[in-house]
Amino acid sequence: MKTIGILGGMGPFATADLYKKITINTKADSDQEQLHIIIDSNTAIPDRTKCILTGCGSPIPEMTHSIRRLEAAGADFLIMPCNTAHYFYRDLLKISEVPILNMLDLTVNYIKTKFGTAKTIGLLATDGTSQSGIYDQYFEKAGMKLVKPSIHQKKVMDFIYEGIKKNNLTIGTEGLFEAVKEMEELGASVFILGCTELSAATDYYSFDERFIDPLLVLAKESITYAGGIVKGI
Amino acid sequence: MKTIGILGGMGPFATADLYKKITINTKADSDQEQLHIIIDSNTAIPDRTKCILTGCGSPIPEMTHSIRRLEAAGADFLIMPCNTAHYFYRDLLKISEVPILNMLDLTVNYIKTKFGTAKTIGLLATDGTSQSGIYDQYFEKAGMKLVKPSIHQKKVMDFIYEGIKKNNLTIGTEGLFEAVKEMEELGASVFILGCTELSAATDYYSFDERFIDPLLVLAKESITYAGGIVKGI
Repeated sequence: MKTIGILGGMGPFATADLYKKITINTKADSDQEQLHIIIDSNTAIPDRTKCILTGCGSPIPEMTHSIRRLEAAGADFLIMPCNTAHYFYRDLLKISEVPILNMLDLTVNYIKTKFGTAKTIGLLATDGTSQSGIYDQYFEKAGMKLVKPSIHQKKVMDFIYEGIKKNNLTIGTEGLFEAVKEMEELGASVFILGCTELSAATDYYSFDERFIDPLLVLAKESITYAGGIVKGI
Repeated sequence: MKTIGILGGMGPFATADLYKKITINTKADSDQEQLHIIIDSNTAIPDRTKCILTGCGSPIPEMTHSIRRLEAAGADFLIMPCNTAHYFYRDLLKISEVPILNMLDLTVNYIKTKFGTAKTIGLLATDGTSQSGIYDQYFEKAGMKLVKPSIHQKKVMDFIYEGIKKNNLTIGTEGLFEAVKEMEELGASVFILGCTELSAATDYYSFDERFIDPLLVLAKESITYAGGIVKGI
């Protein structure tokens, strides 16, 4: 069995969520049958979106410290529970001595396998993730079409920042679904919950199978990669 | 700020719960204001209850590996999200080069400060934790009386094993409260949720302020010890 290293703290809630998703989805009858996981919840890593949009305060030096700590502690491979952090994936790959699973690449492959390449995919994410184009490159590589909300993007942001981030569940999903409807009119029929706050929202709201949670895809792929068995499949 | 090291994996759900409780209870306006936490979710640590009851399969060698990994990664102090693991606290203290906060000692002190020494305390826990007497020694030291259920202890076990551990919320708290009532008849008016499954149950069921969650006490004490500020106080 391989030891999983989580390059975490981006943010801590998403890291706790990924850890829990791996634990829940591992086929295990006792604690001892669960996987060995090492987490560095390194909150000294600067804000990724700010770095991408302004070019200052690179997160790479602190991410490098985390990678070194996780390698030294015995992690056999690394994962990152942050969509935006994957903007730096290629740089981190050069730094790390162990493999790093790519949540975005895995998510696109999962969608490709499950739905084929003919579907148009809609992205629900923050302005930062959306504008940086990090998901676009993986869909281009897969030969798939990605669309994003424009008129109702602000409602996605409100759902994330005024709803989930503030633990305010009274906001409801109406605004979010206006953005979904806008993307449906652009041909989308599968939607990525491309922000870890949206992954967390799956605990509180019901999303049907058209909605793909990258954190859950990553959790299950990590279990398999580590040599464990995913529960229920 | 001190870095928190979590000697985890005993079990992984409790570890994820403690991590989340620290994050939720830290006063922070951004990810960067959260504390640095390193977690070794070491599921190779053998079952603690089995070791206590049968004397074989000591968890100390694997716990020592975790301590060394956490020290090397820069943890300034350690915490353990497992009531039963505290049976080995004194041994671990000799092994560790950094301090280890004691969840049971902190819980007893918290109760002493909040309610005084005159109250009788009731213990809700597994047979293992209850029979090993690990809580008893801390209450004796504090000059306080601890009582345990006998007739309805099985209902506590059922709530833990048939309810929470199986994620079966239909079981309800009726059985658990029969054990509470039994202890009330023995004079108890404050109750310890002395099993991490009971700590987890506070997410699903409402327990009033007579019920003390050691994992929450530990989370808040860890925040303060690390130099952070507990939210809301």
